[in-house]
Parts: sequence; structure tokens; C-alpha cells
Amino acid sequence: MQKFKLPFLTLICSYFFISNFSNHGFSQDITPDKVKTIFGIIPKVAENPSNPVTPEKVNLGRYLFFDPRLSKSGKISCNSCHSLANSGVDGLATSIGHKWQIGPRNAPTVLNAALEFSQFWDGRAKDVEEQAMGPMLNPKEMASTKELVVQRLKSIPQYVDMFKKAFPDETDPVTFENTAKAIAAFERTLLTPSRFDRYMDGDLSALSPEEKEGLKTFIQTGCISCHNGTDIGGGMFQKFGLVNKVSWLQDLGRFEVTKNPADKYVFKVPSLRNITKTAPYFNNGHTWSLEEAVKTMGYVQLGKTLSDEEVKKIVSFLGSLSAEPPLQVTLPNLPPSTPQTPRPMP
Amino acid sequence: MQKFKLPFLTLICSYFFISNFSNHGFSQDITPDKVKTIFGIIPKVAENPSNPVTPEKVNLGRYLFFDPRLSKSGKISCNSCHSLANSGVDGLATSIGHKWQIGPRNAPTVLNAALEFSQFWDGRAKDVEEQAMGPMLNPKEMASTKELVVQRLKSIPQYVDMFKKAFPDETDPVTFENTAKAIAAFERTLLTPSRFDRYMDGDLSALSPEEKEGLKTFIQTGCISCHNGTDIGGGMFQKFGLVNKVSWLQDLGRFEVTKNPADKYVFKVPSLRNITKTAPYFNNGHTWSLEEAVKTMGYVQLGKTLSDEEVKKIVSFLGSLSAEPPLQVTLPNLPPSTPQTPRPMP
Repeated sequence: MQKFKLPFLTLICSYFFISNFSNHGFSQDITPDKVKTIFGIIPKVAENPSNPVTPEKVNLGRYLFFDPRLSKSGKISCNSCHSLANSGVDGLATSIGHKWQIGPRNAPTVLNAALEFSQFWDGRAKDVEEQAMGPMLNPKEMASTKELVVQRLKSIPQYVDMFKKAFPDETDPVTFENTAKAIAAFERTLLTPSRFDRYMDGDLSALSPEEKEGLKTFIQTGCISCHNGTDIGGGMFQKFGLVNKVSWLQDLGRFEVTKNPADKYVFKVPSLRNITKTAPYFNNGHTWSLEEAVKTMGYVQLGKTLSDEEVKKIVSFLGSLSAEPPLQVTLPNLPPSTPQTPRPMP
Repeated sequence: MQKFKLPFLTLICSYFFISNFSNHGFSQDITPDKVKTIFGIIPKVAENPSNPVTPEKVNLGRYLFFDPRLSKSGKISCNSCHSLANSGVDGLATSIGHKWQIGPRNAPTVLNAALEFSQFWDGRAKDVEEQAMGPMLNPKEMASTKELVVQRLKSIPQYVDMFKKAFPDETDPVTFENTAKAIAAFERTLLTPSRFDRYMDGDLSALSPEEKEGLKTFIQTGCISCHNGTDIGGGMFQKFGLVNKVSWLQDLGRFEVTKNPADKYVFKVPSLRNITKTAPYFNNGHTWSLEEAVKTMGYVQLGKTLSDEEVKKIVSFLGSLSAEPPLQVTLPNLPPSTPQTPRPMP
């Protein structure tokens, strides 16, 4: 599938690009078209042929995304940790779940997540369809079961109608898998174009001179080795602490999934879109300052000690990756429960 | 103030109305105009001369309503318990607050709350301005302090600008009181017209025949003795168990505020707008079925044993009190924290 090949292609391209800039200087060569080959303009929708994004499914997914009845307690919805009022995150170091259990990892933003080659910090789900099932069933998060989710939804006539419309060819459309598919279809529309996309589309005025300097520094420093592709990250796995050890890192990352020693401390490279709005940073929210996060990355991943000036420029560029226009989400009006609906179990 | 006088006037009117219907039958006499004298058509905004509802204040209030940084943990916003995706409630028996503490009372809907003569189940706040301060400071709810709220907000430049615009005449506009005022101004716009308002405005077709029968039963049974005024409730205090004792009731209600023995088991009469969507019912969410709630009320408040047929009609009428058109709320895009913002304390 294209989404798997793209990161490798862009990685190869980016190495050529870095070496090109190193040899000949950036200012002569940089053009939106060349930059576009490293990253790519964000699409309107992140399509998935095996889960077509239809208006009916997106609408149902929007309802489900905000519905806390998908959790055992009736208190936690997808939006609780991936708040669409808050750039798709909860703003906490690590998330709070069922009965206030504190989870081990920082909630990644749901914005643009559908563009990524896998889901979760450790890439254990291949796409947002698979991802959306995880938190519902995780005893530390929404603590529900497939049966409870289906029983709750089937007890609510308006949901039954909405599932029929979203999955018109199915005789029993209210299933746990379709619940995840609808949520995923909604997420596939949560893409946030930014000024950087306008720049790549040829509008040179979309970035300020400082942001252009930052882009240059971002490329020349080598950040694009990993943070490339349409989501400016989210296209590959990488060891955290590739060159220098991360002193505070305890999470074994992808090793927990594969048990392959080579995967120790390996994580999915996170997207940098909306990064100025999704603090704190890293797998456990260790760092609140974006400047500090950039400096850390330069040192542990690339073995470079970035100057304050370089950090400032890169952070300035990163500011151009925030949603513009801002994301506009209208809340659903959730259908009421019925006497048959299993009660919240807080 | 008009809002305090109105309930008493409508109460007097309603007694005349009941006796009139009892003597002469309802079908001859009922007209939207007469019904309007008991209730009243919902306004567009619930004005408060001492906190004018300006677009700038409403916009700021919308941001604050959804911002979990008003809570100590950084996890709980006004919207957590008064979910605007869920008719202004959390759908739980009693609410879940800081560190998953379970509160003693059911969260009343924030929709139309600004129309009421006092706030909270026990009426301990005189208006939504006063109410909005309560949960932020309640250690079982948002568990914050005035100082923490102000420190967080002052650390975020976009909020400082928004407060300046919302309170243009003040030299130090970012205060705890103004935070509550802005939230309250937003709440003063959360009014939900329904088909019943269209009916009172003269559109006889806005209610179905069964709903009209239900309205008649609602009036003749005496429900309007308490559930009257624009919010169909929310205009007076009343003892819960006025005629017959409520077997499961332990909450002393307004007595906890006044320490007056006459206030034992006295609560503010809740609004019935959107009631079909705000289960569970009563001060502690004891009852999930609206039919059961209506039957209970008939018995404990009026000493009447309502037939299933009467209950069905009343519930049918209550369905006409739900928001139509549905409430449309667009999520804000919360401004990011800064290095100066006090961290979440989960």
C-alpha cells in the first residue's frame, strides 16, 4: 500500500536533499516544490479503501467519538483524552482513565493520525480502524467490553438507525468492529491543513522569513530523516536515543509488542503537525517545553548540540504546522439511553 | 427583580387554571395563549443587567467552559459534567469529580439553567454567575483554587487578550470572578426552544394530539403547581415528599444551606425542558425511567396515583420540551499553555 512505501521513498529523497543543501547551500535551492517532495501537502481526507469514508459513517463516528457510553463507567469518551477542543490531546503528561488510573503514555493527538503508517506509540495497530478498538477495551482506559458496547448501542434506536445508514449492506450493522470503523471514518476527516501546506502549494508568503530559516535548519540538521512525509512524522519507527542515551527513558516501546531486542526503546516517530499546541512531549510527557524537546531530539537522535538560535528557528518553523484555519467541530446531540441501556458502572 | 416574582404569579395563575379546567373541561378552554400564561415562551438569551451578555464575553465563556485547566488536575472542565453533546448533563446518577470522587447529587443540565431563580439543587447560588464558581473550588469536583485558576489563565496570552476584550473597562480583567462571569454569559445563551414554545406562540400543529392530551393531563393533575414558568420548573423551592414520604430520600436538601428545619428535604424544583434526554432523575439520579419518575412525583407530591395511561400522556407531552432545533455548539480551539502555566496536578 502506498502509505507504507511513502516514508521510505521520502527518506531516500530527504538524504539526497540534506546532502544537496549541505553542499550547495539552501537559499539557492529551496523551493516549495522541493520541500513538497520531503513532506507532501495534506489531503482533505485520509482515505482507506477497506473503510470508505462516507458522510453517514463520518456522522455516526462523530457521535460515537463524543459518547461516554462506550466506556464502562459512562464517563469516558474518545474525546476525553483526544479532546477536539484541545488539538486532539488531553494536555496531561500521561492520560487518566477508568477510576482515575494514570496510564503509562502520553495521548498522541488524533488530528491527522489517520495519515500515519501505524497507530499508538509502539505501532501495535496498523490503522485508525484497529486503533479505535484499543482504548474501549483497555481496563486502564475506557474499561469496556465488546459486548457492553454493542448492548448499549443496540438499546438506543437512533444509533441503530445511524448504523444501518452507515453500513447499508449489512444485516447486523451494530457491531464492535463497525463502531471502530465509524470512529475511524470520522478521524479520517480530522486533518488540519496549515500555513506550511499553503507554502508547499506555492504560496511563498505563507511562511515568515524566520519560519523559512527554521525550515532550512530543520532540513539541514537532519530532523527530516525521521520527520518527513505528509504528517511530518508518523511514517516509520525509530529508536529513541539513537545516538545518545535518553537518561529518563524506561519505556521499552515497540519491544513490548514484538519482543525483538532490536525494538527496545523503539517508537513510532510522532507527527509534528500541531506540535506547538500538544505539549507535553515524548512518550511519557516528560518535557513541557518545545525548545527543550527540540534540543533533546537533536542530541539523542542526531548527536548534535543545537544552539539556542537553531532551536528558536526550528520552533518558529514548527509553529507553521498548526491548523489554519482552526479546526471547526460541531458537537453531536447524543441520543438518549432507554430502559434497556446497560447503566453506567462508575 | 422580575425573575423572583414570576414564579409566584404563575403559581397563582396556575391554580385558577387548574380549577377552571376541572370545572369546565380542558378542550373548550385550552389555547396557546392561556398555556403561555402558565409557562412562557423561552427567550433567545437570559439577560442579566449586572453581567451583560456581550459576544466577546460569550466567546470567552465558551472557551472557558471547555477548558480543563480550570481544574486542579487539568482533566475536568465544566463540560465534563455538563456535556453539551449530551443535553448539558453527564448521564450518571451522581457526578464523578477530582480523582474519581463520586459526588452526592445528580448534575442538573446547564441548558436553560440561566432562566432559573436560583442555582444548584439546594438553591445555594443566586444565579449562574455565582454557580459557576462553585464546581471550580469544590474539592470533590474540579478541586482548584481561585489563585490557581487566575495563575493558569494569566500565563496564556490569548486568554489575557480575550479577557481584555470581554471586560474592556477593567484594568486587571483576568480574575476568578470574571472567569465565572464569562462562563455564565455563555450559559445565558444556552437556551433551547422546543416545539412547545412554537405551540405557545400559536402554532397548534407543533404538538401532536397525544402531546396535547399530555399537556392537559399535566395541567389538570397539578404538575404545574411547581413546574411552571419559562423553564417549566426552576422557579421555586418545594419539599420532595410533600404529601407522601420518599422512601429512599436521605439528602436534606436546602436544610444544609439554611439549617432551618422547615427546609428539610426541600429542593429547587427542576426544569423539565429536555427532560427526556437528561436521565437519570431526581437529586441523586435514583430513577432512570421517566415514566417511573412521573408516577413517583404524582404520588409523593400530589398524593395521586396516576394511571399508566395518564403517565404515558404526560411523558408524551414532556417529549415536546426537547430542544428543537437541536442545540448547535462549535468547540473552541483552546490556546496552548506556556512555560509559565502551572502544570496539571492529577
